[in-house]
Amino acid sequence: MKKETEEAVSRGPEVRVLLYGVGAMGSSIARLLLKKKGVKIVGAIDTAPEKAGRDLSEVIGARKSLGILVSNDPDILLSEVEADIAVHATSSFLEDVYPQLVKLIQHGVDVVSTCEELSYPYISDMDLTLKIDKLAKENGVTVLGTGINPGFVMDTLVITLTAVCQEVRHIKVERVMDAAKRRTPFQKKIGVGLTPEEFKEKMEKNLITGHVGLQQSIAMIGNALGWHLQKISVGPVEPIVAEGFVESDGIKIEPGNVRGLRQTAHGITDRKTSITLVFEAYVGAQEEYDSITIEGTPSIHEKITPCVHGDLSTAAVIVNSIPKVINAAPGLKTMKDLPIPSATLEDMRLYLE
Amino acid sequence: MKKETEEAVSRGPEVRVLLYGVGAMGSSIARLLLKKKGVKIVGAIDTAPEKAGRDLSEVIGARKSLGILVSNDPDILLSEVEADIAVHATSSFLEDVYPQLVKLIQHGVDVVSTCEELSYPYISDMDLTLKIDKLAKENGVTVLGTGINPGFVMDTLVITLTAVCQEVRHIKVERVMDAAKRRTPFQKKIGVGLTPEEFKEKMEKNLITGHVGLQQSIAMIGNALGWHLQKISVGPVEPIVAEGFVESDGIKIEPGNVRGLRQTAHGITDRKTSITLVFEAYVGAQEEYDSITIEGTPSIHEKITPCVHGDLSTAAVIVNSIPKVINAAPGLKTMKDLPIPSATLEDMRLYLE
Repeated sequence: MKKETEEAVSRGPEVRVLLYGVGAMGSSIARLLLKKKGVKIVGAIDTAPEKAGRDLSEVIGARKSLGILVSNDPDILLSEVEADIAVHATSSFLEDVYPQLVKLIQHGVDVVSTCEELSYPYISDMDLTLKIDKLAKENGVTVLGTGINPGFVMDTLVITLTAVCQEVRHIKVERVMDAAKRRTPFQKKIGVGLTPEEFKEKMEKNLITGHVGLQQSIAMIGNALGWHLQKISVGPVEPIVAEGFVESDGIKIEPGNVRGLRQTAHGITDRKTSITLVFEAYVGAQEEYDSITIEGTPSIHEKITPCVHGDLSTAAVIVNSIPKVINAAPGLKTMKDLPIPSATLEDMRLYLE
Repeated sequence: MKKETEEAVSRGPEVRVLLYGVGAMGSSIARLLLKKKGVKIVGAIDTAPEKAGRDLSEVIGARKSLGILVSNDPDILLSEVEADIAVHATSSFLEDVYPQLVKLIQHGVDVVSTCEELSYPYISDMDLTLKIDKLAKENGVTVLGTGINPGFVMDTLVITLTAVCQEVRHIKVERVMDAAKRRTPFQKKIGVGLTPEEFKEKMEKNLITGHVGLQQSIAMIGNALGWHLQKISVGPVEPIVAEGFVESDGIKIEPGNVRGLRQTAHGITDRKTSITLVFEAYVGAQEEYDSITIEGTPSIHEKITPCVHGDLSTAAVIVNSIPKVINAAPGLKTMKDLPIPSATLEDMRLYLE
């Protein structure tokens, strides 16, 4: 056991975290966890052949050794290691993560996941959702999908702001980011530098999928407000093409080539659009922001400038959610079911009930 | 019983609301309640001699008669009327409202109150707070103090935004409003049009008290973040004096006279200021806004322009909190203990668990 201060010991044992998925996001979350007090990484799972058996510290880029090897066998690891909660970061899609979640739940481990479709899974796959909820309740486990988007800027924060309204007629949310400031894999994912033909081709091959989560954000807002959504329409991914030369943060785009993408989604109630989400990520965006406009009584115009940083803040939202998930009653939860989110800045045990 | 649609009947009986205090704020909340479905005002208490025995509709300025007379005797009314929740709007101070809350709690009625000191009462009076919590638990009742400020813009929203941060070093919140756009009683309360000498005199006589709630907002933020606040210092109320002629929305201020006031409060941790709140209300403010600046990783710059409307939104926050309070476990709650706030736009019963 680590050397601890008396104060920390009096708070009881550290929160034991299992990492499930140590790709770019999982590693970033793990590095943040290592900076926090009152929490301990007790194991790591990743099925990628190049990670299995390797030292976790190396894989996540931590300075000191953690004495943990990455396992590629969840069954073996879960039978050997006791954990309070799993930080799960493997896939955007509910179907992919479902069998992984089942194993965690059956071993009595709470789950906080970056899986976009899990942020409001009722709209992703009702059958799997009900199964997860049932199994979680049977095993006394809480499961949450969250992140910055979906999970915060286009849903949780929007819902929170409606609390000051007597009436709401329409909600518009925009997230605009300069892709030049993001990681190269993100730039690739949104087609930066491609010709429009190459972009179209990659779209057809599902190599460019656009943002996952707009549908979930709209469904979560609708449910929180008690709106009956007749339809959620997620528009096609549209390339944003450079008119002239574009240069930002060392990234150069030739005229006619792709700077990034735009995606729009609508929630329809009573044959009219009640919720509009606009997501834009492209090189050289003049202003980066997250804005929420609520037309209602009163109307609310809210803006975060620059937009909330995707990578830093997804890791933050996941880690900050850990005590809320541990404190919550068993079952599948979404951000709208939990107490208001907040930062966990001190010893993690301080926030446990 | 009112005629109801089959759908509404299938949802069970309406939420029965008792009004405790039908002054300007209580009346505004009551008028909003009358616009909502699935909720019914079942009684009203106000101890002001000019209100007792009068028709409630007249007192609150409602169009149609409600068949309710305002009672000045809570004991009699509470023994005659069954209510699910009381909307309480009588005073800013915990000491004043305590005996009123006790009566409501002893009759098994949930409470949502505009009392500023109740929004985070632990810092207002720990003894009374613990008594309220104990009594509420014994009687299976939930008690919440909320509103727009304290209750939302300078605390709940701030705490919510920290959820995207890995680290937080300093938080600054500003609320700037043009007093010309507010009710005349509000203008009087902040000394609009007085000479600086008159302002000082009214301050000394406690006729100008400044904003109540800065201390509560800081304490709530500190508690949510797990910060140990060594000190909360609420600065003196400072008059904002007109340099030249000021005119806004028909209000004219002579040079040298008071346009309104400014108040600043600080939360100190580890001998440094970690939380700064600035409240300004004065005639002719060039820009009305609520802003939150979090210095951290990442830093967050958030702004609502114009500032959230005090009167409209306090009524909204109170009414929107009703289902959350009814759903919550018994005891004294603050906004940080409840699920994320949201608007109740449809039949109130839709939001009950």
